[in-house]
Amino acid sequence: MQKIIVIGGGPAGYPAALEAARLGAQVTLIEKNKLGGVCLNCGCIPSKSLLDAAHKFALLPTLAAWSQDGASTLAAQLFAQKDWSKIQARQQKATAKLVQGISFLLKKAGVTVLAGTASFIDEHTVSVQTSQGTQTVQADGIILATGSQAFFPAPFDKIKDRIYDNANLFSMPALPKSMAIVGGGVIGCEMADFLSALQPRLLPLEDETASRTLTQAFTKRGIKLHLGTSATQAVEENGQWVLTFSSGEQIRAEKILAAIGRAVDLTELHLENIGVTWTRKGVQVNPQTLQLKNNIYAAGDVTGLCQLAHAATRQGEVAARNLCGQSAAYHNESVPRAIYTSPEIACVGLTRAQAQAQGIEVKVHKSFMLANGRAVAQEQTEGYAELLTDSTGKILGATLVGANAAELIHIISVALQAGFTLAQLQEVIFAHPTLAEAVAEAARQ
Amino acid sequence: MQKIIVIGGGPAGYPAALEAARLGAQVTLIEKNKLGGVCLNCGCIPSKSLLDAAHKFALLPTLAAWSQDGASTLAAQLFAQKDWSKIQARQQKATAKLVQGISFLLKKAGVTVLAGTASFIDEHTVSVQTSQGTQTVQADGIILATGSQAFFPAPFDKIKDRIYDNANLFSMPALPKSMAIVGGGVIGCEMADFLSALQPRLLPLEDETASRTLTQAFTKRGIKLHLGTSATQAVEENGQWVLTFSSGEQIRAEKILAAIGRAVDLTELHLENIGVTWTRKGVQVNPQTLQLKNNIYAAGDVTGLCQLAHAATRQGEVAARNLCGQSAAYHNESVPRAIYTSPEIACVGLTRAQAQAQGIEVKVHKSFMLANGRAVAQEQTEGYAELLTDSTGKILGATLVGANAAELIHIISVALQAGFTLAQLQEVIFAHPTLAEAVAEAARQ
Repeated sequence: MQKIIVIGGGPAGYPAALEAARLGAQVTLIEKNKLGGVCLNCGCIPSKSLLDAAHKFALLPTLAAWSQDGASTLAAQLFAQKDWSKIQARQQKATAKLVQGISFLLKKAGVTVLAGTASFIDEHTVSVQTSQGTQTVQADGIILATGSQAFFPAPFDKIKDRIYDNANLFSMPALPKSMAIVGGGVIGCEMADFLSALQPRLLPLEDETASRTLTQAFTKRGIKLHLGTSATQAVEENGQWVLTFSSGEQIRAEKILAAIGRAVDLTELHLENIGVTWTRKGVQVNPQTLQLKNNIYAAGDVTGLCQLAHAATRQGEVAARNLCGQSAAYHNESVPRAIYTSPEIACVGLTRAQAQAQGIEVKVHKSFMLANGRAVAQEQTEGYAELLTDSTGKILGATLVGANAAELIHIISVALQAGFTLAQLQEVIFAHPTLAEAVAEAARQ
Repeated sequence: MQKIIVIGGGPAGYPAALEAARLGAQVTLIEKNKLGGVCLNCGCIPSKSLLDAAHKFALLPTLAAWSQDGASTLAAQLFAQKDWSKIQARQQKATAKLVQGISFLLKKAGVTVLAGTASFIDEHTVSVQTSQGTQTVQADGIILATGSQAFFPAPFDKIKDRIYDNANLFSMPALPKSMAIVGGGVIGCEMADFLSALQPRLLPLEDETASRTLTQAFTKRGIKLHLGTSATQAVEENGQWVLTFSSGEQIRAEKILAAIGRAVDLTELHLENIGVTWTRKGVQVNPQTLQLKNNIYAAGDVTGLCQLAHAATRQGEVAARNLCGQSAAYHNESVPRAIYTSPEIACVGLTRAQAQAQGIEVKVHKSFMLANGRAVAQEQTEGYAELLTDSTGKILGATLVGANAAELIHIISVALQAGFTLAQLQEVIFAHPTLAEAVAEAARQ
């Protein structure tokens, strides 16, 4: 029986361990923090729980508008009584439940879980520092799935212990009166959405690529955007942070959240012992097989291919299959991307820019939620569905903006997997009234 | 240029008119009530608006639970202030907007809209009684899309002017204190859901096939179900209705909603003039081409094939194409079915019973929302995803129960259209965390 070590128990590592066990390997999983990794403990899952709570509290003015005159006072009073500790407790309960689920699955699959920090001795030997001392584990194959952590470029590197990142944001003791969010990627946007829904104050956000729809929605909700600039200085002054931009402009905020990017730190692993180098972006793997070197594979953020949990999971499974003698390939271009703001944004396949860069002449097919029956009935008319096709009508990719976009994108994922043309998608009957009809409508344009 | 008459401007008729116009025909659409038909004016759309409002009001106890102790009093006060006239006004605004949209599309396509009641003179001639008198219209082809209305079997036939059906339910002047809903189909279930969310009282419901999940959810919410029985008597007594069941049991309710089924009434059309007969279930068409007789086609509820708006729309398009010399076919088995209760229920393709009736040995692949990350994070763990495959792994159908099921079902619709096996569906990467992952998880079972 083949022995396999998986280093890291996040969304790449635990599915890799389960897949290897399913294929008959004897698997040891080493995790230095909590099973579930960033995704479950301080990423995807807690953020979704918080966003859900925030979006539900944000309905109060709507409920007041459907009530007798004067109900808005009651709604405002209820809004003011929201309890951060209870919202947090809900999130922690969800996280605990899912971590327990992973623990159960690993146990059921016969995977040995070691709590400790791994370090390479050679290509077949890993030493693990546990609370009970150091242990040495031998294996035929090893999967690296150590993830990433928040990146703190200057001037934030020197104050990183005094500001928030995703690792401590979800356990902050109270909601800040104001927060400067640096970075406008997925984490930055989702947390701006969350905090503005619960605490309607100015939230500065720095980014160059925030989509126009989201920019408009954020601006409408009083989130102050500082785009195309960067912070050069961060100084504490009378209990507030003063952030100075490259333009010279200054803003003040009670707290800072660094959401600038992710960084890989593999110092503890001692990859020099197996002749592998790494950078802040990770290690260099074969992008299809995910092989790092000989019997060593990698999966998840550490590969630098795609910093999304479901990409990590697929990579973990592919790495495990290849290590167990199967022939599996990872396809980065099939990974859907989702941002859980209000409105949600989701994409899959090629973007316009990517298609153009490949020299493909794209045709754009677009419908607007404003003309969608369910969106009108539910007053969720922000957003659109956009399909891209090539000259033969083959679907290349899609962008959806609006309620449930992160769910609806899978309609296109399946169509892409099937190699559908627009005409084939038109044959599908969509239920009425659904938001999904926006996809059918786009296919008719 | 071919002249075509479409009788009926609902979800079958107006798409038929648009499609025929797109294919170059000169089209006259005759509608005796409002454009948009039952779907837009007193069906799909108003019910979705009301359900949405009700589900949002139903969040108040949850918001109170995430707030400081004692906030539940505020939440209850706000709940008590809900204003039926405002909830109704919102629904009417959505309906008006969508009706206006149809009117605009028909005008843009050059379709002549005649407000009046149609009656056949011969296979090429229809007389239309309008407010300005009677008009005669000639055509090469005619599409019948006259829809259906509520069915009132005994003992409700005699009191139909004093009870509610879908046509007057959405304009009722006030929310009743109690309502007996007779019939547990889509309309009955959705309205039980709506009324119980806004008015937590006992709601009797009679049905033999309500799904177990919905039954449990309804029972939990205080909806009283009387299944497998029928009402034999309905008598008004001191301002209340007394309903007697075949078991002898009696219940009392302020109002009655008849949601027992639909009936077709084609008396006014004088189909005898073209030698066509009809029953309460409609007319007999070719189930693929939708041809009724020679140059006459039918679409929507009047065909008796499927009483759903999106089936009607597809039928309207197919009928128009065939009439315009193309060769199109309608596939009843590709129509998804959705119930917008909480939880939502949606199905597409074969059910277990249908597969078994066809002698197909089905394999069931099921996952539960309880194990889905987004469902756990958002506390929407009611429900499941179930896929059916044949012995070769080919997907035959699916049932989804849970939040957004009516949207998620289209993932399977596309997979069915592509003729996917379970293995092919497994290749699709699903975004994490999404409710859609329940489909991926079912595919792994």
